[in-house]
Amino acid sequence: MFSTDAPMTKSERTRAQLREIALRSFRERGYDDTTIRLIAQEAGVSVGTTHYHFASKNHLVQELYLDVQEGHRAAAEPGLAASTDLVDRVGIVYRTGLDQLEPYHGFAPGFLSAAVSPRSPINPLSDDSAPALAIVEGLFREAVDGADDRLPADLRDALPQALVIGHLLLAMFWVYDSSPGQRRTRLLLDRGLRLLRLGLPLARLPIMRAPLRELLGLIADVRIGSTAG
Amino acid sequence: MFSTDAPMTKSERTRAQLREIALRSFRERGYDDTTIRLIAQEAGVSVGTTHYHFASKNHLVQELYLDVQEGHRAAAEPGLAASTDLVDRVGIVYRTGLDQLEPYHGFAPGFLSAAVSPRSPINPLSDDSAPALAIVEGLFREAVDGADDRLPADLRDALPQALVIGHLLLAMFWVYDSSPGQRRTRLLLDRGLRLLRLGLPLARLPIMRAPLRELLGLIADVRIGSTAG
Repeated sequence: MFSTDAPMTKSERTRAQLREIALRSFRERGYDDTTIRLIAQEAGVSVGTTHYHFASKNHLVQELYLDVQEGHRAAAEPGLAASTDLVDRVGIVYRTGLDQLEPYHGFAPGFLSAAVSPRSPINPLSDDSAPALAIVEGLFREAVDGADDRLPADLRDALPQALVIGHLLLAMFWVYDSSPGQRRTRLLLDRGLRLLRLGLPLARLPIMRAPLRELLGLIADVRIGSTAG
Repeated sequence: MFSTDAPMTKSERTRAQLREIALRSFRERGYDDTTIRLIAQEAGVSVGTTHYHFASKNHLVQELYLDVQEGHRAAAEPGLAASTDLVDRVGIVYRTGLDQLEPYHGFAPGFLSAAVSPRSPINPLSDDSAPALAIVEGLFREAVDGADDRLPADLRDALPQALVIGHLLLAMFWVYDSSPGQRRTRLLLDRGLRLLRLGLPLARLPIMRAPLRELLGLIADVRIGSTAG
């Protein structure tokens, strides 16, 4: 393995520079107005060189997704290290996830339009986006695995997947949220966490067994449907 | 008021013809490839005449939405007249809603991309789309109001709104569903209806009072967020 301190080659430096310019452009210009041509121009390299490093704009969006989710992980870890309460831990992952999205809110509708089609390579559920989604899935699994709760085992197993679906739906709500600082999204999240705190202990009641089984089946069904898209 | 049997004026006939051509084009060509120019050409009228009747392509999409939802209402009413069971009635509205969407599945990703932005005039939650959404809301309200259940009053009041949110999410799942005949969407719906049948009676238990109140608040929060988008 190479040391991370090893000096970068010229090619690596060019790649890193193109990546930085692209990430800034997505923040400042949004998805629609960011082009390979513009990035090449700002970096002072040819379009061909840019294509050599990033075959398409979609590849740059994947860099953005990874950047956002690596930032998400870095922001969530200190909080996760400090709490063993399940709902607190879940809240940490959701809140730090929203924090990371914040700089992109102005251009979020354009991103959503480009990403929402099941045929889009930048769809969060696409094969290309799997590495970024895996970070989110890992964070929710860590939030659940590190908690000292007493959930039924089948609910515990299904919970990370349900929380990821919740994350995608919350992100969608956030795109629509025009309140200052997307305050409504935060309030909706607080509400969802309160519901989780009140609802999870009920999962141990015998009367909840049958509906819980249906709910877990529903979560599994949604997941299957999404990945097959 | 005019009798509906009154002969149409030439202008009314042109409008009806343009509308028919547009609806067929949306089914056969999808959203992206349907243009005002193409519709004018097929109708043998000028682009100017077409614009006179429909100021933009978005106006034609609204005709499509109304056509789909009027078909939905016509398909749901016989079933609603024949049952007083709440979950059966809700199932009738969901299933007939999916039936109406069926002819558009091949082009659904293009429609979704064009409609999903909160800034899009063909977003189902936009002001322009309100008349079509009102038909869906009315159907779910009718499904609940005509049922002989024993739900707490606050749950009963909030239920139609929650079912409409469920309808929009189910339609989104359906866009992603590439299984033959979108069978997975039907199975997911069946699962959701079974969950409703098992879960709704629990709403009367005192222990469910606090989580139910949070759930109702969450439904109300989602609605506020959406309409403000």
